[in-house]
Amino acid sequence: MSKTRAYISVSLDGYVAGPNETMEEPLGENGERLHDWAVALRSWRELQGMEGGEENASSAVIADDNANVGAEIMGRGKFGPPSRGPWGDDPWLGWWGEDPPFHKPVFVLTHHAREPLSLSDTTFTFVTDGIEAAHDLARAAAGEKDVLIGGGAKTINQFLAAGLLDELDLHVVPIILGGGARLFDGVGPEVKLELARVIDAPGVTHLRYRVTAGR
Amino acid sequence: MSKTRAYISVSLDGYVAGPNETMEEPLGENGERLHDWAVALRSWRELQGMEGGEENASSAVIADDNANVGAEIMGRGKFGPPSRGPWGDDPWLGWWGEDPPFHKPVFVLTHHAREPLSLSDTTFTFVTDGIEAAHDLARAAAGEKDVLIGGGAKTINQFLAAGLLDELDLHVVPIILGGGARLFDGVGPEVKLELARVIDAPGVTHLRYRVTAGR
Repeated sequence: MSKTRAYISVSLDGYVAGPNETMEEPLGENGERLHDWAVALRSWRELQGMEGGEENASSAVIADDNANVGAEIMGRGKFGPPSRGPWGDDPWLGWWGEDPPFHKPVFVLTHHAREPLSLSDTTFTFVTDGIEAAHDLARAAAGEKDVLIGGGAKTINQFLAAGLLDELDLHVVPIILGGGARLFDGVGPEVKLELARVIDAPGVTHLRYRVTAGR
Repeated sequence: MSKTRAYISVSLDGYVAGPNETMEEPLGENGERLHDWAVALRSWRELQGMEGGEENASSAVIADDNANVGAEIMGRGKFGPPSRGPWGDDPWLGWWGEDPPFHKPVFVLTHHAREPLSLSDTTFTFVTDGIEAAHDLARAAAGEKDVLIGGGAKTINQFLAAGLLDELDLHVVPIILGGGARLFDGVGPEVKLELARVIDAPGVTHLRYRVTAGR
């Protein structure tokens, strides 16, 4: 059965980005370090169109996380820099250049309307009427495949709190960020989870949870 | 070499006790559920003087966590109920009755002076001049053995932030508490950790970290 799921790298103190996000440091102070384990992998580099890299126990996790994804939903904070407000006449085109690494329909949550943006084989659709509307659109676009909630923390937290997430794969990195975007903020005890699998890999522990009950 | 270490059960959202601690619910709302995995174990029950229980992958973790401990340091919030202030004429004697399960010197951090309290073979010494003084006393009392930082979150966080903790064993329980006493609060990125081992057990994931650098 197709699922709605998320995977994300999280610090030991529960942050998916560090404090003080800027244009230069979109993941906040020390936030880049959350992804060191992934950047080292050949499979991750391939997805980004980069060469080289190694294989280890994380390789299968990356492959698995990115398999069978039919559509992605992301917050505006993942699509663009920390500025907010209307998109303007020369709107931001995403962080990823002319050939974004998604290759599938992407739905961007925003408070400000905007025409769809197509870059190579990725189309960004901007959704202004909330997560349930975005979820319906993404589900329809994904067909038999899964819907990936691509982040950031606020978006994943909203889907968790609304009972719309089926599975959450946490890549727990042994660093302390001390502040930033916190996973599970605003999520309550009515969300029930069970551990689905553990993988111990260099520099990261992969903990996958199934959501068994929500709001 | 003898270590200063801590072990604690933590929810997926990073809390070691739920919100709204009371005399009746000293671990806050749903906080008891953090310890379900342990209460089921024969080895945990033996330490508390209780009978029955099962054995599983957590049994060795419990045994290991409690081996070679020469002294324990705890916050007043672990020793007694959430009331604060001077101890008074009929002071609280701890949660554990006439035969506390420690069987070793215990140092209680408090802002209010009090004479030592001996119950069976456990002596509680009340330390009013901070964590470093408590650490010196506990180290001397422990001799060749380890000093255990017994909690709660605030106490462990203080030791982590001060660079006084060598090892932290997290028992990660797949529940959301949504608030309460948060581990790592006030701890910054200068604290460096590395994963020492992972154990996947029923209802809990044991992640042990070594602290490699502190303040």
